[in-house]
Amino acid sequence: MGMNDSPFLKACRGESVDRIPVWILRQAGRFLPQYREVRSRFPDFLEFVRNPQACAEVTCQPPALLGVDAAILFSDILTVLPPLGFDLAFREGEGPRISNPLRSGDGRNLTAFDPVQELSYVMDAVRACRQALPADLPLIGFAGAPWTVACYAVDGGGSKEFSRTRAWLYSDPTGFAKVLATLADTTADYLAAQAEAGCQVLQVFESWGGLLSPTDYRRMVIPAMERLLSRLREKTDLPVIVYCNGASTLMRELLVLDCQVLAFDWRIEMEDARAIAGSRPLQGNFDPCLLHASPDDIGRRVREVATQSVGGAWIANLGHGIQPDAPVAGLKALIDAVHEIDPRTLA
Amino acid sequence: MGMNDSPFLKACRGESVDRIPVWILRQAGRFLPQYREVRSRFPDFLEFVRNPQACAEVTCQPPALLGVDAAILFSDILTVLPPLGFDLAFREGEGPRISNPLRSGDGRNLTAFDPVQELSYVMDAVRACRQALPADLPLIGFAGAPWTVACYAVDGGGSKEFSRTRAWLYSDPTGFAKVLATLADTTADYLAAQAEAGCQVLQVFESWGGLLSPTDYRRMVIPAMERLLSRLREKTDLPVIVYCNGASTLMRELLVLDCQVLAFDWRIEMEDARAIAGSRPLQGNFDPCLLHASPDDIGRRVREVATQSVGGAWIANLGHGIQPDAPVAGLKALIDAVHEIDPRTLA
Repeated sequence: MGMNDSPFLKACRGESVDRIPVWILRQAGRFLPQYREVRSRFPDFLEFVRNPQACAEVTCQPPALLGVDAAILFSDILTVLPPLGFDLAFREGEGPRISNPLRSGDGRNLTAFDPVQELSYVMDAVRACRQALPADLPLIGFAGAPWTVACYAVDGGGSKEFSRTRAWLYSDPTGFAKVLATLADTTADYLAAQAEAGCQVLQVFESWGGLLSPTDYRRMVIPAMERLLSRLREKTDLPVIVYCNGASTLMRELLVLDCQVLAFDWRIEMEDARAIAGSRPLQGNFDPCLLHASPDDIGRRVREVATQSVGGAWIANLGHGIQPDAPVAGLKALIDAVHEIDPRTLA
Repeated sequence: MGMNDSPFLKACRGESVDRIPVWILRQAGRFLPQYREVRSRFPDFLEFVRNPQACAEVTCQPPALLGVDAAILFSDILTVLPPLGFDLAFREGEGPRISNPLRSGDGRNLTAFDPVQELSYVMDAVRACRQALPADLPLIGFAGAPWTVACYAVDGGGSKEFSRTRAWLYSDPTGFAKVLATLADTTADYLAAQAEAGCQVLQVFESWGGLLSPTDYRRMVIPAMERLLSRLREKTDLPVIVYCNGASTLMRELLVLDCQVLAFDWRIEMEDARAIAGSRPLQGNFDPCLLHASPDDIGRRVREVATQSVGGAWIANLGHGIQPDAPVAGLKALIDAVHEIDPRTLA
């Protein structure tokens, strides 16, 4: 069985599968002791991200340890910020901090850059991962979506509300659209470079899409997403997954996007997403906290969502990144429950 | 024109109005210089909340300064925690902290208390507000919903995810249901006491409902909400508003609740909420960041939402609390735009 027959790639293409593929958002993460061991070698998070060998090591852990059906490159959605002129740092326990955030009317212009040159360490990591992974296991490359990256670039770090960014969107829609357009071009080139370096699938992370109303998302953000995907299409034909957190009421807006798979969180029921998306491949959408339930309750919920997914391909995943305190036993119960389902019995 | 003819009360009862009522979530708040002046007299936030005269002073400011159609008692959704045995403190710039959070399996049992006795300062504040407000201006009393209060009681403070609370819901649904039931009883008695002290409308704040999937909200939280509302109904017939932040995909679940008005945030379009809720009175739902837009753009959006609200009564409001940096001019533009609409021209 070669790479092209892997359940994950088949599901991305909308083909029927013998076994439902599953992988986990942030699967190379702090909940794994083996990850924490590698992480502890680097005092600084960005040093870790910029070390291709270390990235390859933690990227390979989840397939080997957990039996997931895809690897996702260990990296960060904010890697694009330094080449765009931002001073990015990760402070212990605080998440990202940008000391020179972009502000409405500050006269700074963002300029797209060549990711092959400026982010060569990421392409090195992709190549190292590809070399270390089993030959038939797909590797996912990724980037942050323009709106989500703008949230960090403008608000200057993580936030519950990203109010500065939303205020800019309202106070100067034309200026803000330019920021999104530059980020769209940069992101397309960045994803294309990861494809070229050896990825099989690309995922766009719209982690903060759910902060906007459907109307604002449609008017302001969808054009940037379309720009990104059309520029990317000129360079690669790899399957693209668009993941949107808080996509509950954005599913209808996301349908127009030229991508193979729509991924989303648990605040929309799988059956409602399926009704909206038709036969399009879907990815998601368990509450990460479900991993604290008993194996029986986890299995019941997995079968419930699997049944709701009928009508198109389904890639099982959490609806948001796995949490540092997630019990590995709960995760194994979830992965096993997915793999135990015979997809032919669902329809 | 007496109290009963006020546009806000008429809209709560689903009657037609000559002018669309508007009030603002957290309207007695830091964005008002006059509020900050009163606030500065108290080093500690809880001292402020426990001072009936100060509460009445800031409660009366927004109607006098901004021309809103209702006052909402200045208080906090966490006032119920200390009488339930929690050590609650507000640290400067950090929000609430509970030093002895409730944990699954810690053997603590919450016991409902008599709010007339234990929270007499709140009833004193209601009476002081009622005395100071114009005779025809409705006063809204409020409390946190059981799930939302549980989020703070279990996680021990504000959080982006309230993961401990969600983990408990999954790991011990029976034990967690008991916590919600006690909070439901306490909250019903607390709201009834505010009604008795002189409020005209009651609002339940489900600020963190949107963290749960529709299925989990329906299975775990709706029973507690129904318990609260049915106990409350035995004691008062005042109109009740249930506000749910992140209600996008929960609107269908909320429909079963025995309350007059459904209020929600901007992540669901008013027209979709109207389609789901039928002719039921609705309250909301502007993005607080809209206040940074130009007066023209604010007016345009107000008319857009007003048009979408047709089919039942509408109480204009933000979809979440007004932010400390909100421009007062933007808020005045929004309030004026609402009041300039002739409701008869909408239908």
